[in-house]
Amino acid sequence: MTALQTEETAAAAGRIVLGRNQYGKAEVRLVKITRDTARHEIEDLNVTSQLHGDFETAHTKGDNSKVVATDTQKNTVYAFARDGVGSPEAFLLRLGRHFTESFDWVTGGRWAAEQYKWDRINDHDHAFSRNKSETRTAVLLIEGGRRHLVAGIQDLTVLKSTGSEFHGFPRDRYTTLQETTDRILATDVTARWRYNPGAGEIDFNAVYESVRAILLDAFAQTHSLALQQTLFQMGKHVLEAHPEIAEIKLSLPNKHHFLVDLTPFQLDNPNEVFYAADRPYGLIEATVEREGAGQEDAVWANIPGFC
Amino acid sequence: MTALQTEETAAAAGRIVLGRNQYGKAEVRLVKITRDTARHEIEDLNVTSQLHGDFETAHTKGDNSKVVATDTQKNTVYAFARDGVGSPEAFLLRLGRHFTESFDWVTGGRWAAEQYKWDRINDHDHAFSRNKSETRTAVLLIEGGRRHLVAGIQDLTVLKSTGSEFHGFPRDRYTTLQETTDRILATDVTARWRYNPGAGEIDFNAVYESVRAILLDAFAQTHSLALQQTLFQMGKHVLEAHPEIAEIKLSLPNKHHFLVDLTPFQLDNPNEVFYAADRPYGLIEATVEREGAGQEDAVWANIPGFC
Amino acid sequence: MTALQTEETAAAAGRIVLGRNQYGKAEVRLVKITRDTARHEIEDLNVTSQLHGDFETAHTKGDNSKVVATDTQKNTVYAFARDGVGSPEAFLLRLGRHFTESFDWVTGGRWAAEQYKWDRINDHDHAFSRNKSETRTAVLLIEGGRRHLVAGIQDLTVLKSTGSEFHGFPRDRYTTLQETTDRILATDVTARWRYNPGAGEIDFNAVYESVRAILLDAFAQTHSLALQQTLFQMGKHVLEAHPEIAEIKLSLPNKHHFLVDLTPFQLDNPNEVFYAADRPYGLIEATVEREGAGQEDAVWANIPGFC
Amino acid sequence: MTALQTEETAAAAGRIVLGRNQYGKAEVRLVKITRDTARHEIEDLNVTSQLHGDFETAHTKGDNSKVVATDTQKNTVYAFARDGVGSPEAFLLRLGRHFTESFDWVTGGRWAAEQYKWDRINDHDHAFSRNKSETRTAVLLIEGGRRHLVAGIQDLTVLKSTGSEFHGFPRDRYTTLQETTDRILATDVTARWRYNPGAGEIDFNAVYESVRAILLDAFAQTHSLALQQTLFQMGKHVLEAHPEIAEIKLSLPNKHHFLVDLTPFQLDNPNEVFYAADRPYGLIEATVEREGAGQEDAVWANIPGFC
Repeated sequence: MTALQTEETAAAAGRIVLGRNQYGKAEVRLVKITRDTARHEIEDLNVTSQLHGDFETAHTKGDNSKVVATDTQKNTVYAFARDGVGSPEAFLLRLGRHFTESFDWVTGGRWAAEQYKWDRINDHDHAFSRNKSETRTAVLLIEGGRRHLVAGIQDLTVLKSTGSEFHGFPRDRYTTLQETTDRILATDVTARWRYNPGAGEIDFNAVYESVRAILLDAFAQTHSLALQQTLFQMGKHVLEAHPEIAEIKLSLPNKHHFLVDLTPFQLDNPNEVFYAADRPYGLIEATVEREGAGQEDAVWANIPGFC
Repeated sequence: MTALQTEETAAAAGRIVLGRNQYGKAEVRLVKITRDTARHEIEDLNVTSQLHGDFETAHTKGDNSKVVATDTQKNTVYAFARDGVGSPEAFLLRLGRHFTESFDWVTGGRWAAEQYKWDRINDHDHAFSRNKSETRTAVLLIEGGRRHLVAGIQDLTVLKSTGSEFHGFPRDRYTTLQETTDRILATDVTARWRYNPGAGEIDFNAVYESVRAILLDAFAQTHSLALQQTLFQMGKHVLEAHPEIAEIKLSLPNKHHFLVDLTPFQLDNPNEVFYAADRPYGLIEATVEREGAGQEDAVWANIPGFC
Repeated sequence: MTALQTEETAAAAGRIVLGRNQYGKAEVRLVKITRDTARHEIEDLNVTSQLHGDFETAHTKGDNSKVVATDTQKNTVYAFARDGVGSPEAFLLRLGRHFTESFDWVTGGRWAAEQYKWDRINDHDHAFSRNKSETRTAVLLIEGGRRHLVAGIQDLTVLKSTGSEFHGFPRDRYTTLQETTDRILATDVTARWRYNPGAGEIDFNAVYESVRAILLDAFAQTHSLALQQTLFQMGKHVLEAHPEIAEIKLSLPNKHHFLVDLTPFQLDNPNEVFYAADRPYGLIEATVEREGAGQEDAVWANIPGFC
Repeated sequence: MTALQTEETAAAAGRIVLGRNQYGKAEVRLVKITRDTARHEIEDLNVTSQLHGDFETAHTKGDNSKVVATDTQKNTVYAFARDGVGSPEAFLLRLGRHFTESFDWVTGGRWAAEQYKWDRINDHDHAFSRNKSETRTAVLLIEGGRRHLVAGIQDLTVLKSTGSEFHGFPRDRYTTLQETTDRILATDVTARWRYNPGAGEIDFNAVYESVRAILLDAFAQTHSLALQQTLFQMGKHVLEAHPEIAEIKLSLPNKHHFLVDLTPFQLDNPNEVFYAADRPYGLIEATVEREGAGQEDAVWANIPGFC
C-alpha cells in the first residue's frame, strides 16, 4: 500500500493524513466446471481482489472518480473464470496484470485465493465429494512493479501418538510442567511459501502436491524433541526439494492432549486415555529460509498471521 | 425425560411444576490410543452424557442428594475408555447400562457421541492426519426400560456438476424461478438411522462404512429431478441393504450454485461459471421407513434437528 | 409433518415408504427499514419457511407438480415484508396462513425466525449499532389445523461471581469433585416458551421484553444451590407473570470457571483468579409448566434442541 | 522476531537456516474477580504470550535449554493476575517486562489480549451479563529494546439506513453497478491505534471508551459518499481528539444490503425491504496518520490483518 500525502491534504486535515490503504472485494465464491468432455473437472475458489494506488480523494473528499467499484472487481473475477482457472496462482496473476494495466492510477494490489479440494465419488464423471482435510491458499502482491507470489496450505491436522518428547527446558518460579519422553504431538499445519522471483515457469499444482506430501512425511518421520524441531525439519525438507521456493513460514499450534489421571479410579493409564484440550494451546511459528536471501517484509505484512 | 409432578410441588409452586428434564456433561473430548503393538490405533470422540430420573427436589429445593455430579459423569467416560471404545454405539451402551444400574433413581438417559476420523500418513504406525470430510454420530436413548440406538453421519459435502433437473413446479404470484434441465446439485449430507430394537448383534463399524458408501453412491447414481427424489433414493438403498435399520432420516440443504450472467461482458456461460451462495438455501428433510413399522417420536425428539 | 403412505408406494418401493417430511427455504436474511418519518425503524430477521403436505410423488417419482419452489417461498417472505414485520410472531402467522390457504395440498408447516437487535447510536434517527448480547427467536407450527407458537431468547450470557454453591451430591467410585459453598455460576441462557392456544390478543414484543427481564432478574436474585434450582426459579417467575404462556423450556450450559491453584507460586487465591474452560461443560435442561396442562410433544419435536 | 543465523547452522543445514520465529501460549482464558468489597468487579480476557530471542538450537537440534515452556508462560499469566489486571495494556506491559528481564536470551516478544465486556444486571453487586457488541484488543510488541503498544476494538457492527451515496465511479467493460444516492451502509468496525512512544502516562481505559464513542459518532454523523470517506472521518476525529495516538488503522467490510426487486409481485420498494448478503463483501482498509510521523512496519507486521 502506498502512503499518499499531498500538502493540500495535510493542510486541509490539520496535518492528519491518509497513510497506507487498499480496498476491493473479498470472498468472491467461484465454482468453475470444465465440461469439454463428459468427464467434468471442478475448481472451487474463494477469491479476494484489493487494489493499491491513488485513492486519496475518495478518502478525503468522497470523490470516486478513480474508485474501480468493488462490484466491478467481482465481475472481473467471474468473467476471467470463463477462460478457466488452471491454478489459483495463475488466476491471480491474470487478475493482477489486468487491474494494474487497465487503470493507470492502480499501481499495485493484493489478490488472494483459497481453493477447496473435491474428490470424485467412485471415479464418477460428474459426482464429487468435498475433501475438507486441507485448504490451499495463494497470495499475489504487486508493489513497485514487482510481483510476489506466496502459496500455502492450511487446515491440515496431524497427530503422532508417540515419538515425541519434551524435556530439558529451564525451570523458574512459575514452572510446574513435568518433563516427558512420550507424549502425543498434534497440530494444525498452516504453511506459506514464497516463490523465488527469479524462478522460471513453475507448475504450481505440482509444487503444491509435492510440498503437501513433504510436510506430512517430515511430520511423521521426525522423532520430535520439541515442536520447534519438527517445524524446522518440515521447512528444511521443503526447501531442499524445491529450489524455486525462497522461504517457507510455518505456524503450528501445539494442540495439547493431556493424559487423564485415572489413579482415583484404581486404574493405570499407560498413555492410552487423553483429554483433548481446546484452549490455551502452544503456538510455534518460524521461518525457514535460504541464507543470504533478501527479506521481503512488505510481502509478509500483507499476509495475515505471518510475520 | 420424565415429568415429575407431585401434589406437594404443585401446591408449593402455585400449580407451576417441573416437567421433562435432563442434565449431564456435554462434549467430553476423549482421545483413546490403543498401543498393544507398535501399530497404534486412534479413536477420537466427543461424548455427552445426560441422565433422566427423579431430580425434582434439585430443581425445586436445591437438594442435590440425587444429583450425580456432571463431573462424575465426565470421570466415568474417561475411566470406561481405559477398557477401550470399540465403536461409539458400543461405548454409549456401556455408559447407559452403568448409570441406569448404579443409581436406582436414574430411570434412563441420553448418551451421544461424535467420532472424528483419522487416516494414517503413508501407512505410518503412529502418525495420522485428520480426515475432516465426515463426522460419525451416535445417540443412545434409554426410556422406560427400552434402549433406542440411532447412528448417523454428517458434514459429508457432495456435488454433481450435471445430471440434475428442476421443472414442473407450480407457479403463483410470487414465483419467478426459471425451470432448468441442467443445474449443479450440491448438499451437505446429514443422516440418522435408527436400529431395529429386535436386531441381533450388530457390527456398528461395518454398518457405518456401508451406509456411508451407499449414500455416496446413491447420490452419484441418481439422475435427479428434485433433491427430494435424490433423498428418497439415498434412504431407500440404505434400508434395502440393511434389514437391521428400521428407518433413516435425511436433512439435505440445497446449496445453491447460481450460473453467473456473463452476457454484459459479451461472454456466454454454458454451465461453466457459478456463484456458490451462502444463504438462503433450500432445506429438504424426510424420513424413509418400513411400512407398518411403529413410530418412535420420543427417540427423535431427543435428536436435535430431526423430527 | 405428515406420514404419507399409499399402497402403491409401498408396493413400488418394496414396503419401503416415505415417512414424515418437510421442505422449504432456510435463512432468508431480511432487513426491513420503516421510513415513514425521518426517524427510521429497523427490523433484522433470519426467516425459514418449511411446508408440510402431500409431497410424496416428488420423493418417489421426481414429480414436482405440488412442490411450491423454495425460491417462491423466499420471494413470498420479501413480498410480505413490504407491508411490515411488526413482530417475528405476527410475521410468521401471516406466512403460515398464506401458504396453508393458497395451496390445498399444503396441510401445515413450520415457520421460524431469528431477530437481531439494533440500538440507536446516540439516539440518531437513522444510525444504529447491533446489540449482539441476545437473539430473539420464534417458531410457528401448523399441524392438523392447529397453530402452535413458541417464542424464545438465546445467546444471553450471564455470570454470578458469588452466591452459588454446590454440595450434598452423591459420591461413587468415579466422584472426585470437591464440594463448594462459593463458586462462579455462568451460563448462556436459551429459553423457549409456548403460548397458550387459548390466549387472546398478545403483544408479542412486550411479552418478549418482559420475559427477558424476568429471566435476568431471577438469575441475579436466586442464591443458587444448583443450576437446576436457578433454572426452575427462572421458569417459575416467567409463568407466574405471564398466564398466556403455557410452558417454558430452558437449556443452560454450566460454563465452568475453575479456580486456578496458585499455591505452587506461593500465592493464595481467594476466589479471584479463574480459568474459563471451553469444554466439557455441564448441561442442564428442563421444562417448567402448569400442572395438568396437556403435553405438546409434536411442537417441541420441531424445535431442535428442546425435548 | 529476530533472524538467528550462525555459520554452523548454515553449514549443517546446507545453507538452509532459521529465520524469524516466535513461540508461546495462545488464548489463555483469564477471568479476574475483584472482591475487595461486596460490589464485585469482573475482568474477562483472552491472553497470548509469545517470546522472541535465541531459540535457534531448539529448532535445529531439539535443545530446549532456553525454551521457557509455554506452560510456564500460561502459569505466569495467572500468577500475575493475582495482583489485578487494571487494563489489558497495563497487564501486557507487566508480562513483557517480566519475560524480557527474567531470561537474558529473551530479547523481546509479542503479548496480546482480547477483553470481553460485562454489564451489571440491574446494577446488581455480583450478577453480570456479557455485552457482546464489541471486543477490546491490545498488543504489546517489544523489539530491540523498544516497546510498541497498539490498542483496538473489533466486532462493533453499525448500520445507517440512509445518508449514504455511491456514484461517480469509473465504468469499464466489467462494470454493471448502478449509481445510487441512497443506500444502506453497514460495516463491522475493526480499528487498531498505536500509542505514541513519547506519550506520558495514559489512562488506557478512558482512551478506549473515548475512541469507541468517537468512532460511533463519526460513523453516524458523516454523510457518506464512499465508505472510504466515512473511514477517513472516523480516523481523523480520533487523532484530533487524542494526541497520544500516533496513527489508527481501520478495516471496514462493506456489508451489502441489496434492495429486493418487488416489481414481479406488483409492489414498489422505496428503500424498505433489503436482502442482507453474506459474501462477497467490499473491504476497505486504510491508515490515518500524522504527517511526518515515522512508519512502524515491524509493529504492524505482528498484527494479523493490518498492514
